[in-house]
Amino acid sequence: MPSDDSGGLLGPLFSGSSADPELSDRALLQAMLDAERALAAASARAGLVPEEAAAAIGAVCQADRFDPGELGRRAVAAGNPVVPLVAELTEAVTSEAGPEAARWVHHGATSQDILDTAWSLVGVRALGPILEDLEAAAAAAAGLAETHRVTVMAGRTLGQQALPTTFGLKAAGWLVAVEEAAAGLARVRRERLAAQLGGAAGTLASLGPEGVGVVRHYAELLGLAEPVLPWHTNRIRVAELAAALGVVAGVLGKLALDVTLLAQTEVGEVNEGGEGRGGSSTLPHKHNPVTSVLVVAATRRVPGLVATLLGSMAQEQERATGAWHGEWQPQVELLRLVGGAAYRTRDLLQGLEVHPDRMRANLEASGGQVMTERIATELAGPLGRTGAQELVRRLARQAADTSRPLRSLLAGDPQVREHLDESTIDQLLDPQDYLGSAGELIDRALAAHRARRGGADRP
Amino acid sequence: MPSDDSGGLLGPLFSGSSADPELSDRALLQAMLDAERALAAASARAGLVPEEAAAAIGAVCQADRFDPGELGRRAVAAGNPVVPLVAELTEAVTSEAGPEAARWVHHGATSQDILDTAWSLVGVRALGPILEDLEAAAAAAAGLAETHRVTVMAGRTLGQQALPTTFGLKAAGWLVAVEEAAAGLARVRRERLAAQLGGAAGTLASLGPEGVGVVRHYAELLGLAEPVLPWHTNRIRVAELAAALGVVAGVLGKLALDVTLLAQTEVGEVNEGGEGRGGSSTLPHKHNPVTSVLVVAATRRVPGLVATLLGSMAQEQERATGAWHGEWQPQVELLRLVGGAAYRTRDLLQGLEVHPDRMRANLEASGGQVMTERIATELAGPLGRTGAQELVRRLARQAADTSRPLRSLLAGDPQVREHLDESTIDQLLDPQDYLGSAGELIDRALAAHRARRGGADRP
Amino acid sequence: MPSDDSGGLLGPLFSGSSADPELSDRALLQAMLDAERALAAASARAGLVPEEAAAAIGAVCQADRFDPGELGRRAVAAGNPVVPLVAELTEAVTSEAGPEAARWVHHGATSQDILDTAWSLVGVRALGPILEDLEAAAAAAAGLAETHRVTVMAGRTLGQQALPTTFGLKAAGWLVAVEEAAAGLARVRRERLAAQLGGAAGTLASLGPEGVGVVRHYAELLGLAEPVLPWHTNRIRVAELAAALGVVAGVLGKLALDVTLLAQTEVGEVNEGGEGRGGSSTLPHKHNPVTSVLVVAATRRVPGLVATLLGSMAQEQERATGAWHGEWQPQVELLRLVGGAAYRTRDLLQGLEVHPDRMRANLEASGGQVMTERIATELAGPLGRTGAQELVRRLARQAADTSRPLRSLLAGDPQVREHLDESTIDQLLDPQDYLGSAGELIDRALAAHRARRGGADRP
Amino acid sequence: MPSDDSGGLLGPLFSGSSADPELSDRALLQAMLDAERALAAASARAGLVPEEAAAAIGAVCQADRFDPGELGRRAVAAGNPVVPLVAELTEAVTSEAGPEAARWVHHGATSQDILDTAWSLVGVRALGPILEDLEAAAAAAAGLAETHRVTVMAGRTLGQQALPTTFGLKAAGWLVAVEEAAAGLARVRRERLAAQLGGAAGTLASLGPEGVGVVRHYAELLGLAEPVLPWHTNRIRVAELAAALGVVAGVLGKLALDVTLLAQTEVGEVNEGGEGRGGSSTLPHKHNPVTSVLVVAATRRVPGLVATLLGSMAQEQERATGAWHGEWQPQVELLRLVGGAAYRTRDLLQGLEVHPDRMRANLEASGGQVMTERIATELAGPLGRTGAQELVRRLARQAADTSRPLRSLLAGDPQVREHLDESTIDQLLDPQDYLGSAGELIDRALAAHRARRGGADRP
Repeated sequence: MPSDDSGGLLGPLFSGSSADPELSDRALLQAMLDAERALAAASARAGLVPEEAAAAIGAVCQADRFDPGELGRRAVAAGNPVVPLVAELTEAVTSEAGPEAARWVHHGATSQDILDTAWSLVGVRALGPILEDLEAAAAAAAGLAETHRVTVMAGRTLGQQALPTTFGLKAAGWLVAVEEAAAGLARVRRERLAAQLGGAAGTLASLGPEGVGVVRHYAELLGLAEPVLPWHTNRIRVAELAAALGVVAGVLGKLALDVTLLAQTEVGEVNEGGEGRGGSSTLPHKHNPVTSVLVVAATRRVPGLVATLLGSMAQEQERATGAWHGEWQPQVELLRLVGGAAYRTRDLLQGLEVHPDRMRANLEASGGQVMTERIATELAGPLGRTGAQELVRRLARQAADTSRPLRSLLAGDPQVREHLDESTIDQLLDPQDYLGSAGELIDRALAAHRARRGGADRP
Repeated sequence: MPSDDSGGLLGPLFSGSSADPELSDRALLQAMLDAERALAAASARAGLVPEEAAAAIGAVCQADRFDPGELGRRAVAAGNPVVPLVAELTEAVTSEAGPEAARWVHHGATSQDILDTAWSLVGVRALGPILEDLEAAAAAAAGLAETHRVTVMAGRTLGQQALPTTFGLKAAGWLVAVEEAAAGLARVRRERLAAQLGGAAGTLASLGPEGVGVVRHYAELLGLAEPVLPWHTNRIRVAELAAALGVVAGVLGKLALDVTLLAQTEVGEVNEGGEGRGGSSTLPHKHNPVTSVLVVAATRRVPGLVATLLGSMAQEQERATGAWHGEWQPQVELLRLVGGAAYRTRDLLQGLEVHPDRMRANLEASGGQVMTERIATELAGPLGRTGAQELVRRLARQAADTSRPLRSLLAGDPQVREHLDESTIDQLLDPQDYLGSAGELIDRALAAHRARRGGADRP
Repeated sequence: MPSDDSGGLLGPLFSGSSADPELSDRALLQAMLDAERALAAASARAGLVPEEAAAAIGAVCQADRFDPGELGRRAVAAGNPVVPLVAELTEAVTSEAGPEAARWVHHGATSQDILDTAWSLVGVRALGPILEDLEAAAAAAAGLAETHRVTVMAGRTLGQQALPTTFGLKAAGWLVAVEEAAAGLARVRRERLAAQLGGAAGTLASLGPEGVGVVRHYAELLGLAEPVLPWHTNRIRVAELAAALGVVAGVLGKLALDVTLLAQTEVGEVNEGGEGRGGSSTLPHKHNPVTSVLVVAATRRVPGLVATLLGSMAQEQERATGAWHGEWQPQVELLRLVGGAAYRTRDLLQGLEVHPDRMRANLEASGGQVMTERIATELAGPLGRTGAQELVRRLARQAADTSRPLRSLLAGDPQVREHLDESTIDQLLDPQDYLGSAGELIDRALAAHRARRGGADRP
Repeated sequence: MPSDDSGGLLGPLFSGSSADPELSDRALLQAMLDAERALAAASARAGLVPEEAAAAIGAVCQADRFDPGELGRRAVAAGNPVVPLVAELTEAVTSEAGPEAARWVHHGATSQDILDTAWSLVGVRALGPILEDLEAAAAAAAGLAETHRVTVMAGRTLGQQALPTTFGLKAAGWLVAVEEAAAGLARVRRERLAAQLGGAAGTLASLGPEGVGVVRHYAELLGLAEPVLPWHTNRIRVAELAAALGVVAGVLGKLALDVTLLAQTEVGEVNEGGEGRGGSSTLPHKHNPVTSVLVVAATRRVPGLVATLLGSMAQEQERATGAWHGEWQPQVELLRLVGGAAYRTRDLLQGLEVHPDRMRANLEASGGQVMTERIATELAGPLGRTGAQELVRRLARQAADTSRPLRSLLAGDPQVREHLDESTIDQLLDPQDYLGSAGELIDRALAAHRARRGGADRP
């Protein structure tokens, strides 16, 4: 149930963002009532419903007048919560404003119109804080990229030290990923979360010739996109939201995974900030990267939910026999999980403690192995690409097997020395001198970041 | 959050079984406390902990002494709810029985020991009512199979009427499927839900030489299977439970899908019982198959959750960095969804209204088309398999295109008439006479059902 | 293996589109070689590589010079096919143009640069024909929408006849869905399929200060988007392609599901065209909707693949330990499945046979039940919304239970007759007169279609 | 397509096991022919078909008489490859033995009978080598467990060094996991892979009163389980196979993940054996753990496929409109991926190079931090559990922050020294002395292994 999934014994571990209140039962109920209110008002604009009736309906469309739990219990008989809500709303309008006004409650709509519209509203409202958290996370990543523009560390591929890179470039990679993912989510929010109004079979039959006009007013009043057609069984919009959330989750999961790897005891290049966090029930020395772990945990659950929502696109004829109902909880769960992960990632990046000394030490521990590409490139002139690769491979393996620094093997190898003197070898082995375009790439990422902050992708 | 997911605005649509209380926060908390109590008692048996300390610990292991919401909030800092629970438990034991007893709280265990064991207990407890609902559903299917042993209807393949079958055989298919799926679930419950105890790294280090003995007592006290090794990052058991639930969901989803198809306006061969159910917010005549629809909706969500749990098996070293935490909510959600679906399927089958007249009418509406296999088989003697198939295919197509009954085309075709006279044609077109082994198959299913009810697969 | 997955015993059932050749091993190999050629040419533009060397490299970058099977076998030792390809390419350039040119093969790149770029090229190339098939399918849907603008049929919700609609509106729904999904796919193709070039750790180290410039030339030469940063472990682009394909699959699966439902023996409102298709191995009369069935089959496999690719976004540090390798086959499989489904849907819609008489007959078979909303709306004035709903519900149930037409029960009910005379009842029960905005909605969909065909979303 | 998926440019990276030939098109085709042969022979046994006809049919049921590619192309029109195969088979029997024998080809069966039975045969045959590879992998793990019974290393939880453990216990964990997973797979192979025979609607109608007897003979002849009922749309067996493969994949993926983590440059405790493997296209020093990486890659693709097969259980009435067709390729892909992963894991464990010195060094690098639990347990007597935990936590943090060994802080702390003298501290900090039940647990795992090797779970 929306309102409480963020609470209880386990909920707080996977939620916590300020999007949570927008995902509560009360928020969903209010969104349903907002849809009913807008329907009445739009119909009044179109001249189908008396203004006073619309006003009377609008006046009672307040979530705190209704009991979500009771509505939920009564929802079972009809298969959705709109049926009992319309009954209670009709009763409330009758008692407040008389039967003539009550007659216009839910006029022209079907349950799915109200619930789909409510989900769009919930989406718009919950994505606000989520996009803010992502923006703040991106800003924190940008800060790390700037601060650590020349902090040299090992680039690691397949778990092995490969080449030098900078922590700044790694942070820039996080920045670009978070911003691109957020941009996709913002686009769905802006363009794709739409009003739904089609009536029982999508023809707007009970609104007579004014149907299309009512839809336009309804969407405007709600601040939602106006669709070309009712989309009762065309679930692209739901799928696009799910997919965009899935992409964000993927980005956040990768970032948190990086942190857990960098925080390993044997690596120790970063650790999570925050006093009193990451303790163990039995190991006093532990400082577990719990924030990252919780982000990883949340994001691992996302692809299965996205798959469920993609699979739910197979909806029969004019209303599905189950696939629509199956969307509701996964959708709210996706929003909550991604919200929690975004909120935690912001926190994680803002507090991340970085250890440049350890980065340098780890890099140097390999005794020059991470510079083999450069040596081989240098020797490819005289020896050819394949020959150079083979020579350096042999020496590197020998260095590893004998625990000797690669430098001394290079310096002692006659074939190498034919082409490189000792000082050249030393220079070629300097990681600081082999960072390629790292700095320029960071600048590109920061420039894109600054452009974006001024631009259209903001939430 | 477990306790409330079955409530609220949407929860009741997907829960409702008597397994729900076993899936609440309170139930999970009690299971954690049961594990702590058993740990102390087992250690006392092994002589590691004073009997009085164990008794004192056991005495405070009552869920209503603790506040799940507060524990949940405090869980975030440590990444799991056991850390704050152990703190509170220690405090409670201290205040009730003094520090000497409190010293033995959680002795030798790690958070995951307690939580994994608690999940096994929750599984055992929740599966009880779920298996009962499945058994009752199977009994109802058996009743339908018996009652409708000779109720002829169209067998439908790829949505097309194919051959006659009986509703009894269809119900027998449901019966076998439900029972086979339930048997798999019962097996996991009986054999695979295990105690977990390994200490921080799985060596039982802080229990000294008595570790393995403590595990044995602990499992016995809890009524759970005793594993060969601690299984902190060997998640087969979790995956097996998920898979067995996934299989049950698949069976229930197929059954409910069949009902929705048979209940279509144009088919009308069954409808759901239950007064006042299946109404629409706008269409007074609707009698929607809502129970089936809710079963379909619930079961469509299951494969994604199973995939999440299978994917979560990739757990690092001696404790995962996220994949373990990611198991918790999907696991309880799986149990709740399958529980709700089992409960609804029981209800559905117990109340199902079957319309033999409509079945017969639908079968006859095709004018003999469903008997083409038999005609072709009969003609395969004289005409060869291919020739007979082609002749009958031609006549069947002609009958369909001209809306004439196939009987008259057969009777009017000289090639057919060379081998079959009119009364033979009439007999060959009688669906009641072409049911093959339907009755015998139903008997096999019922015999297996009766054997099972007396046997070992019962919950 | 790409090249043959579209062949063999099962492949043709799930492929068949003219995108298939773009998904073959040979096509992937050529794309890898195109990347190597462009890398050399871009480096030459930047002054890093001699023009003649680049030309010599480019000249041998032809797929038919290499044996995909042999490369595949040799790929196992390195974990990817680029390593043996670079070895063979170096050898070929050496033999054609000497070691000096060969030295520049693969200069500055890492395996993932070549393979990721190749996948982007494969995506761009395969999406061309896929988008054409979708466009043709949309055009066919538009044709159906126009032709059947006033073809009345039952709108069906939860499998039950609900209200009248038109087949034109149903086809317009398909049209909008196909076009919106195609637009999303076209956007990914145009904006997101990017060149990859970062070198071993993403710093472009071995290209010295010219790295970023080389990337720009490289992307331009290949006609791919230029990324802000290398995206070795930022897999948004891969996920976005997968998600867009997932959305297309969802739309096509829904459309095919509708056809299978409309083609049921008892509904019979459409059937697939095509002589000699849909036969059975044993039932001569069967005309199975096999094209739809194959579309459904293909699209059901898509969400799992999308989930795999979303899950694969969790890529470690500067190069993943498995998640990258796990992308390759699912990605090509997604393209093939969606390609096959798009091609079949085009075929399906172009040949669909529609039976307006049967639609009308099915609608009338309910004896006016599908008009209850209208009657209740009319009576809501005098009786109030709730009262009117209840009265009509009672009469509709009674009509269903007694198999009498609703019209006569309405005409015979005193409360109804107080407000409606017989001719009004007759008029209210006329489905043709209760289509609401169906025609206007079709016009909107067709207008959007025409606008799109002239516009930017075309492939 | 089965036969070639293990070849081509990418196939070899994800296949390679001796199960591959059993997954080829030719093998599937032979399995289909085996089913047709057994059907004829079973019918002959039951007296329905002349012995000579059955013999004649059996004689032509040889895969090399048929062209899978041509059958595949012709399969599209019917939606499955059985329809063209039956046509070709009929033709072949006619030409070899005359029309009277040919008349009995496929007698009584439907396409799904043949294809489902063929898949069961393919499963049984492919699982043979897969289970052998798993057995060999288990034996290798057992060898590692024995050899490294006292090889001390750091147990790592959430990526942090936690407590000492042994490499032997880690290997024992792999052993138990592999064997338990293999046992589940062996059970499905033995008990659940069943013959399918029901005829077009599952009634065995065209076999007359002998239907059930024919099924029994058919299953016996094929060595497959005999089901209670035809299971055309009861897909438990397919789902159970998928789930068991999913569990195996989960286990293998975890094992490979462990290896990649232990092989990290900064950890370096194991590396993959094998000369000339794990090279990079640009980095001469790299020795990537490619075997593990390929296992990880393969196993990450599995949960999505299992979800697809679980989702495919929703099969309509007596034959599905797509969900059945959607099973075929995912099923063979699952078998191939798990087969490849099993084969690689065997290879990986047999060649694994273990570095006990590095394990010891990594453990000691923490300066005693991994022994905090023991110190705290010791101090819990005098200080209480909470007090001891807090004291040790403070000292451990201080040691980490100041890079001093924990030993000296303990020795210098007055509160500690009140209860522990220096030699006690030294002893408490000895990891070799704090392995708890590690050895006994290894023995349990090895005993279970030996019992299993003699027992019923062998393939």
